[in-house]
Amino acid sequence: MKKIKIALLGLGNVGQGVWQILNTNKKQITLNCGYEIEVSKILVQNIEKPRTIEIPKELLTTRIEDILVDDEIKIVIELMGGSNPAMQYMLKAMKCKKHVITANKLVLATQGEELFRTSEEEGVSFYYEASVGGGIPIIREINESLTANKIEQLVGIINGTTNYILTKMTHEGMDFNEALRGAQEMGFAEADPTSDIEGYDAAYKLAIMASLSFGTKIELNCIYREGIRNIKAIDIDYADKFGYVIKLLAIGKNTKDNLELRVHPTMIPKNHPLANVNDSFNAIFIKGNAVGDLMLYGRGAGALPTGSAVVGDLISILRNNTDLSALTSVKNGSSQKKVQTAEENTSGYYVRLNVQDKPGVLGEIATIFGRYDVSILTVTQEVKSEDNVPLVFITHEAQEGNMNKSLKDIQGLSHVNGVENIIRIENFS
Amino acid sequence: MKKIKIALLGLGNVGQGVWQILNTNKKQITLNCGYEIEVSKILVQNIEKPRTIEIPKELLTTRIEDILVDDEIKIVIELMGGSNPAMQYMLKAMKCKKHVITANKLVLATQGEELFRTSEEEGVSFYYEASVGGGIPIIREINESLTANKIEQLVGIINGTTNYILTKMTHEGMDFNEALRGAQEMGFAEADPTSDIEGYDAAYKLAIMASLSFGTKIELNCIYREGIRNIKAIDIDYADKFGYVIKLLAIGKNTKDNLELRVHPTMIPKNHPLANVNDSFNAIFIKGNAVGDLMLYGRGAGALPTGSAVVGDLISILRNNTDLSALTSVKNGSSQKKVQTAEENTSGYYVRLNVQDKPGVLGEIATIFGRYDVSILTVTQEVKSEDNVPLVFITHEAQEGNMNKSLKDIQGLSHVNGVENIIRIENFS
Repeated sequence: MKKIKIALLGLGNVGQGVWQILNTNKKQITLNCGYEIEVSKILVQNIEKPRTIEIPKELLTTRIEDILVDDEIKIVIELMGGSNPAMQYMLKAMKCKKHVITANKLVLATQGEELFRTSEEEGVSFYYEASVGGGIPIIREINESLTANKIEQLVGIINGTTNYILTKMTHEGMDFNEALRGAQEMGFAEADPTSDIEGYDAAYKLAIMASLSFGTKIELNCIYREGIRNIKAIDIDYADKFGYVIKLLAIGKNTKDNLELRVHPTMIPKNHPLANVNDSFNAIFIKGNAVGDLMLYGRGAGALPTGSAVVGDLISILRNNTDLSALTSVKNGSSQKKVQTAEENTSGYYVRLNVQDKPGVLGEIATIFGRYDVSILTVTQEVKSEDNVPLVFITHEAQEGNMNKSLKDIQGLSHVNGVENIIRIENFS
Repeated sequence: MKKIKIALLGLGNVGQGVWQILNTNKKQITLNCGYEIEVSKILVQNIEKPRTIEIPKELLTTRIEDILVDDEIKIVIELMGGSNPAMQYMLKAMKCKKHVITANKLVLATQGEELFRTSEEEGVSFYYEASVGGGIPIIREINESLTANKIEQLVGIINGTTNYILTKMTHEGMDFNEALRGAQEMGFAEADPTSDIEGYDAAYKLAIMASLSFGTKIELNCIYREGIRNIKAIDIDYADKFGYVIKLLAIGKNTKDNLELRVHPTMIPKNHPLANVNDSFNAIFIKGNAVGDLMLYGRGAGALPTGSAVVGDLISILRNNTDLSALTSVKNGSSQKKVQTAEENTSGYYVRLNVQDKPGVLGEIATIFGRYDVSILTVTQEVKSEDNVPLVFITHEAQEGNMNKSLKDIQGLSHVNGVENIIRIENFS
């Protein structure tokens, strides 16, 4: 197996996530990219700082030069954040003929053009999926999947902190300050929350998405921006009354002559898919002139989701250097697992019986379920003036074979007229 | 500009969609792939058949040989559907060193392995994004974006016909047969709806997604399958009562030792993102061990959405043959549009005023809105025992400059204490 050496710049939350993914999913990643990946150096500010994950100390360095001069390092992953020195280090890495991956929305939104130009001049790859929407593959979507479309609209919930706060205000009646404190305690908001609360973070991400979607370089100061500090409980109540919910949206519209770009709190109809994007989740709604309405939903932040996007970029770069097609793992039959029989499957069940309304019938049925390890969550019997009534059970997760055996016995009971329907329940646990 | 010749096999719904996209978005597609694309032959059964779109008759042929022997045709797009001759034609095209794109779920689910193997042996590309989820880029997601993940779960609403029927039964209280007839009248269901209603269509798509996600070849008969014919209004009512909705789900779980694969009507919690996927929309929910929960939502069928996926594949194949990076259009500044000022933007508005409860105040405000072309949708005034009361307007779409002028005048009214909040409304029109 071929080997490739890479370096990380920064070992914060996302850096540690990338390290963890490269280790946990090592076997599959190697199969997917055709290389064994070795993190050979990591740039940090302080080597002695205690970290939650165990990383060999000899990999850590405080000198960018150690990475730049090492010709064996082919790919540099920038996860420091902030404007400088991140920008300078990426440019230098490209000039040393290293491919670059970044999660840095600020640098992309403000100095992206220079990075694109330099990567082209130096003939290296430059990937940045993690810069918008964390684990949501929105960049690849725009740059590769939707290339047949004229993209007409982008509407995103792309800041998890403000979405968490607005969700708490809407569902739990908190006021803004209380919800902000909660977000800070949960680690969703920074001590200085200005960038999130005032919409700067969303504006950076909108600038990146809009420039790629609409083929136009976007200056940040052309984006209208308004934060959520002014949203009051009374506004949320009125929104509800009129059939809306309030979300901080980043909106990009490709009108006939112009672009319309804005970030502000917005009322949207309750039945729109974006209205149900809650807590710290992100989603991006796209309208293309061929594909119609499309939405991507997922974790917009966090070590592992963001790391998923970074390592996905890494695999893409390595694949471009090999003859591997996307289907390696299937063709190799890498994990030829057995498909379970229906009897072996498990799920919750809704069971609707028709029974004669006689004493003891419920007890008889419950006893049979118990015999086969089927545990009952709720049971409901309609009070009707008829003899034959519906009796409905909801069960916990049970094995389908056991459910089938129970039903066979239940059908034999003298007061049971029939099993009228069985529907499986998925609780996404 | 370089030119490339391609051929279509089939000119039904999707074929005509592809033709339309290649024409409507010609300029952008050329820019995105670096080639001018020419459809030089189209295989049809009947050249004289009337068609809704205008296509030069000299492009049509009934003989596959005309396409196979034409060395100038580099890419063949199979949109005939069905097992044969589609499969045979694709194999032959590959053996003539042509790249192949297909939307054919049946062939992929049953004979995909032979297509993958042949494309590799012949050194040609084989793309099939449109085979699952229409315009939703689920194949690229699995094959390229999520490569850093162990995919643990796939849960999809991947059949539009059954989702339309279940939505009508749930929201409008229709029974199954009535909803099915409606779907047939709307063109969402075929005259013989068996493949959709009984879950075969969903099972083909699950087989494709699961084999790619779990690296295991899936035999169709290993997938447990159950249709929606047996769902009654009473079951939908009980589901609602217990906090569930009923959806036809395709479920794939990558358990420790086995795979669990099934298609059946399922109750899911109302607050799960999949619960709000209605009508003929599709969505696929994915759980990866790094990315966490992710969902893709969009049009699972239709000429243009499916065509969007097909033409996206075409552009990908052409890009692989060029040095173009994904960012061509941005770098070219292809459409350097002006970003509108906030004053030029339009949206609906929620305006909350604090006013003195005096006769005439509403009329004065409405007159001002009218003067600046701001049209009022609703107005609400709380009846309170206080002098100062909230007065809330919802407006139709208006230009922000006009709204600002209105508010300036309104603030000057003697009975208006203040403009307490303005929130924009997005109706996704």
